[in-house]
Amino acid sequence: MSQNIYDDPVFFEGYSRMRRSREGLDGAAEWPALRALLPDLRGLKVVDLGCGMGWFCRWAREAGAAQVLGLDLSQRMLERARALTDDAGIAYASADLERLELPQGGYDLAFSSLAFHYVEDAGRLYRTIAQALVPGAPLVFSTEHPIYMAPSRPGWGSGEDGRRIWPLDSYEREGPRVTDWLAPGVVKHHRTLATTVNLLLDAGFAIERLEEFLSALDPAAHDPELHDELERPMFLLVAGRRH
Amino acid sequence: MSQNIYDDPVFFEGYSRMRRSREGLDGAAEWPALRALLPDLRGLKVVDLGCGMGWFCRWAREAGAAQVLGLDLSQRMLERARALTDDAGIAYASADLERLELPQGGYDLAFSSLAFHYVEDAGRLYRTIAQALVPGAPLVFSTEHPIYMAPSRPGWGSGEDGRRIWPLDSYEREGPRVTDWLAPGVVKHHRTLATTVNLLLDAGFAIERLEEFLSALDPAAHDPELHDELERPMFLLVAGRRH
Repeated sequence: MSQNIYDDPVFFEGYSRMRRSREGLDGAAEWPALRALLPDLRGLKVVDLGCGMGWFCRWAREAGAAQVLGLDLSQRMLERARALTDDAGIAYASADLERLELPQGGYDLAFSSLAFHYVEDAGRLYRTIAQALVPGAPLVFSTEHPIYMAPSRPGWGSGEDGRRIWPLDSYEREGPRVTDWLAPGVVKHHRTLATTVNLLLDAGFAIERLEEFLSALDPAAHDPELHDELERPMFLLVAGRRH
Repeated sequence: MSQNIYDDPVFFEGYSRMRRSREGLDGAAEWPALRALLPDLRGLKVVDLGCGMGWFCRWAREAGAAQVLGLDLSQRMLERARALTDDAGIAYASADLERLELPQGGYDLAFSSLAFHYVEDAGRLYRTIAQALVPGAPLVFSTEHPIYMAPSRPGWGSGEDGRRIWPLDSYEREGPRVTDWLAPGVVKHHRTLATTVNLLLDAGFAIERLEEFLSALDPAAHDPELHDELERPMFLLVAGRRH
C-alpha cells in the first residue's frame, strides 16, 4: 500500500497552504503545459488518478466531460474535494493507486497530476489504466522528474565557480526516496525516464509527447523562483495513447 | 556544417587509441545494450550515420545485411574504414549529417552510434532519415545523454558529505556545448530528452525503446570506472520505428 502522507495533519496543513491548493489549476505553474497535452474533453468519461481536492475534476466538467471519477488515497483530500464540488457528473472515491482496479474499457481519458511518483509498481498501474481505457484513448499525466527525484540528498548546491548546480547522483539507482517535504519521511519511488517510457510501452501505450517542465514554457513569464528550473527539470509531463 | 573534429590530427590520434577504436564494437561498453535494440539484419539494406572506422558496417554484414552504406564527415575515418574493409556489400561515402540527403525509401534500417550529438538541426536529420526508410523500418541510435551534455562545466564534483555528484545545470538551456575531449574546442549540441523524443515523433517515428546507459546493464560485470554511471547516465539509446 502507498504511504498515505496526505492524511498526515502536518503535511495536509502545509499542502493546503500551497498556491495550487488555494487557487487550483491556475496556481500550478505546469498546468498550461499539461493542459496542452489534453484532448477535447467534450462528452468524455474521465478518470483522475490522485484527484486531491478535485480541481481537475471540476475543470474537466466545465470543459465538457460527460462524467468524471476522482480517485484518491487521502480521506482528507476526498472530504475537501466533496465540499468544493456540487456536480452530479463528478464522483469521488477512495483508491490506492498501488492496488488500483478499474472496469475494463470504462474510460475515454485517464489523467493524473503529481501522484504517480508515490507508486512503487508503476508497471501494474499502467497496465490497469490501459485496460480501463477504450482503444485509442489518451493517458495524460505529470510526475516528479527523475532528475529531481534521484539525488540521495536533493537540494541546490554550488559549483566550483559558485554557479548554482543540482548535485545529481544515484540516477540509475531506482527505488524509494525518503525526503522531508511539508512533513518528515515522505516516501517517493524513483524510476529513470527510460523506465517510465518503457513500462508505458510494455503496458500498450504509444508515446505521444514528453515535456520536461519548464522546457515548454517561457521562464521569463513566471515567478523568479521558477528560473531555477532552467538548471534541472522538476516535473515530467507525459501524453500516451492506448493502442 | 558540422564541426569536423575527427579530422583534427590530435583528436583522431586520441580517438584511435580508445578501446572502441582498437577493439571495435566489443570495446564499447554500451554495444550489448545497443545491439539488443536491433532487428534481425538478414537481407536488410542498412545505412550507418557516422560510421567512423566501419566497425558496425562490417558487423552488420556478418549479421546478414544485404547492403550497408557507411557515411561519415571525416576523411580520416573513411580512409581507416576502407582500409579495414574487404566486402563489396559495404560502401563508404562522405556526408555531413547536418546536410544529409538520402534516396526515398532506400533503407530497411538506419543506425547511428554517438554521432547525433554533433548535429545542430536534429529535426531535419530525423525527417531525412524517416523519408529514407521504408514504412515500418527501425531507426536505432545512441547519443550522448542530455544529463551528460547539459552542464556548463561537465565533470565529477563532491557533495556536501563528500559523495560523488554530477553537478547538473543548464539542462533546459538547449544549444551548443564546447568541451575539451581528446582535443580542445569540441562542439556538441545539447537537447533535452523530451526534445529528442518529440522531434522523432514529429518526424514520423514511433518510440519503441529508450535506454539510459547503464540502466540496462549489470554494472558489476563491467570495468570499475563504469560504476560511476550509476550516478548519471552517459549515453541515451533510442529505438524508433517509422510509421
